[in-house]
Amino acid sequence: MIDRTHDPRPTSWVASANTGGDFPIQNLPFGVFTPPAGGPPRGGVAIGAKILDLSAALKAGLFTGEARTAAEAAAGPALNPWMALTPRARTLLRQRLSDLLSGDNPARFQIEPLASRLLHDAEVCVMGVPAEVGDYTDFYAGIHHAENVGQLFRPDTPLLPNYKYVPIGYHGRASSIRPSGAPVHRPSGQRKPPELSVPEFGPSRSLDYELELGAWVGPGNALGKPVAIGDAGSHIVGFSLLNDWSARDLQAWEYQPLGPFLAKNFMTTVSPWVVTVDALAPFRVAQKARPAGDPRPLPYLWDDRDQAMGAFDIQLEVRLLTPRMRERSMPPEVIGRSNATDLYWTFAQLVAHHTAGGCNLRPGDLLGSGTISGPQEGSQGSLLERSQGGRKPIQLSSGEARAFLQDGDEISLSGSCGRGPGRIGFGRCSAVILG
Amino acid sequence: MIDRTHDPRPTSWVASANTGGDFPIQNLPFGVFTPPAGGPPRGGVAIGAKILDLSAALKAGLFTGEARTAAEAAAGPALNPWMALTPRARTLLRQRLSDLLSGDNPARFQIEPLASRLLHDAEVCVMGVPAEVGDYTDFYAGIHHAENVGQLFRPDTPLLPNYKYVPIGYHGRASSIRPSGAPVHRPSGQRKPPELSVPEFGPSRSLDYELELGAWVGPGNALGKPVAIGDAGSHIVGFSLLNDWSARDLQAWEYQPLGPFLAKNFMTTVSPWVVTVDALAPFRVAQKARPAGDPRPLPYLWDDRDQAMGAFDIQLEVRLLTPRMRERSMPPEVIGRSNATDLYWTFAQLVAHHTAGGCNLRPGDLLGSGTISGPQEGSQGSLLERSQGGRKPIQLSSGEARAFLQDGDEISLSGSCGRGPGRIGFGRCSAVILG
Repeated sequence: MIDRTHDPRPTSWVASANTGGDFPIQNLPFGVFTPPAGGPPRGGVAIGAKILDLSAALKAGLFTGEARTAAEAAAGPALNPWMALTPRARTLLRQRLSDLLSGDNPARFQIEPLASRLLHDAEVCVMGVPAEVGDYTDFYAGIHHAENVGQLFRPDTPLLPNYKYVPIGYHGRASSIRPSGAPVHRPSGQRKPPELSVPEFGPSRSLDYELELGAWVGPGNALGKPVAIGDAGSHIVGFSLLNDWSARDLQAWEYQPLGPFLAKNFMTTVSPWVVTVDALAPFRVAQKARPAGDPRPLPYLWDDRDQAMGAFDIQLEVRLLTPRMRERSMPPEVIGRSNATDLYWTFAQLVAHHTAGGCNLRPGDLLGSGTISGPQEGSQGSLLERSQGGRKPIQLSSGEARAFLQDGDEISLSGSCGRGPGRIGFGRCSAVILG
Repeated sequence: MIDRTHDPRPTSWVASANTGGDFPIQNLPFGVFTPPAGGPPRGGVAIGAKILDLSAALKAGLFTGEARTAAEAAAGPALNPWMALTPRARTLLRQRLSDLLSGDNPARFQIEPLASRLLHDAEVCVMGVPAEVGDYTDFYAGIHHAENVGQLFRPDTPLLPNYKYVPIGYHGRASSIRPSGAPVHRPSGQRKPPELSVPEFGPSRSLDYELELGAWVGPGNALGKPVAIGDAGSHIVGFSLLNDWSARDLQAWEYQPLGPFLAKNFMTTVSPWVVTVDALAPFRVAQKARPAGDPRPLPYLWDDRDQAMGAFDIQLEVRLLTPRMRERSMPPEVIGRSNATDLYWTFAQLVAHHTAGGCNLRPGDLLGSGTISGPQEGSQGSLLERSQGGRKPIQLSSGEARAFLQDGDEISLSGSCGRGPGRIGFGRCSAVILG
């Protein structure tokens, strides 16, 4: 199957798709939205500043054959059935959507007259979490983050002996995953700063963000049947941005021996659009070579093809908008920049490891990458790292300083692939800390 | 509301309910079953060796008013809607069921003539997991287990400084929860025994069980709205037995810093019947006094009423049947005995802690207690503890020894409250290790 959807040249008859935004015709991410008129949440595809209503497009008879079956799977209140499809079926649907929305394909004449019924202004729609997340796993594949944080929690052994062998991960909380825009309730919990002899309970004083990618899983595997590394990549449907909000004071006191719990489970924010692996195909790159001296991954994690094209060149940014900046109409300030190529493991390796013991993945499961920090100053994916555990607050152009997040602060993540024509982005992943 | 369902004297017109089994009329646990004729899984109530089909009983018009609404919530393919009900609604349904199934209540004459249609032989029905588990959390509330295991993993600091303050827990894997009877695939994974300089990959050599109780959650709370300790008990619907299968060699290598992952996520077994808090009311006891010198829990975890009656006197046993015992028609051998009163935290404390930071619980969530070990020899809830990390295999009456589980071994958990008339039990929680 030749995929013609990667050509950076085509434009869309939807004018707002041709203005350099996140959602040109080369992207076509899937999500779940509720239009302003209400009704049940439904599947849609972003094109420029519009959302194509798949359910309405189906009723209009715009899909046939396998593409129709795939559109039906993507039209409901959660994208799990679409994620359960084969990669081929998802690609066929994407190709049909590309044909329908292109400026230079005759299919445009089938859909354009119906535009007022089928396309909604994205700005007035409410986006949901794209799937019912059966299980959410958060990995720790950002080695620079692991080193930076390890340095703070365990100065003697920042990187534990297992790190370069085991794609470390833990099970996160599925119930508290929320789409971009939902506010964050500052969590309370126990903390025991060194100066206290017993712990105290109260609102976290060191609320933080974590810059991550979230990979959406499908079709998944049966219990007891591991996914081989060579097949593992085909179980990733696409990606969202993911903010793994973290309360560092609670985390430091609670995390041994079973890992983070209240420090993380109060909320996780995802961007509502699933940017598909098809859209990301032009931005696949080789996994970075491991530094000299690092061990080669064990065979169940090694695949030549995965090493050659299993990483993604996704530029990531974190922006902070404080209440003072808002008052003064200042723009949000970029406080972190990194790239998904800074991950130590590919997503295929994460899938192969997750299932190696027989654990079953289901369509709609979510895999967090772990915080993506780069090696250089300014590339850290959390305030914990940037402020060195709160000791060196970062200085903002508003004249303020931040060791950790304050009430009213808004954190926005962004992701972008390529530059110029064909550039695609991830859309919004923002949330305000409630005061 | 006076609850008359706790009197140990009544018997049922269902003869098999009066023979000392786990399911007398004082129990009436809820579950999901598929009858031998097939059809969709549906809600049922165990009575003796029978299962009352709630869907069929509804069609027969046996429920009215609030009890009818509650029966409808319990009649479907998963008990989540029933768990979402108020405790009062669940109690009303239970009282009606008790009236219908009693030998000395005139309601018997409404149902008894329909028995052949409404009651199925439990033995030929297939039981499922009682709810769709949105999130599964496993706690670590068995202090003797924590001490025993800590001794093996960290001889210097067996019980970490946070243990007596924080109800330690971690998020487990929901997708791999299976009902009693589903076999266990021995997981593969990485291990690094001390004699190796680098890890190796292969099937676990130290597969273990963990004897736990699982608490079913309902109605739950909204994100950002903690459940106060005084209300927390009302969010527990009932209990099942829970076997938190564990691969100790994988666990030892992977668990730092984010907790167990492949070591646990390959499977969790639950007994399929939800023994309700109503049925357990006569077996509520005071939480054991903390040993002298232990800190008093922080205020968000302290409630006088919870301390006075928040624990449950549930006797627990683990039995092992090896292939050799099976060949020789020997009965399973008891290899562990403990009691739920050995837990350091009440389930209300677990709920209050879980939600203290705003994390939302949903109906059908499952909370594992953590391994319940007692203080004395023979009361350990795992082989890891009983065999002291594998160094002292236990001797079986079959002449065999076990440091950890071997292929073909079957582990069965059992739970029981009271003795003689009114004794209730939890039913089967068994699984065989696949060879």
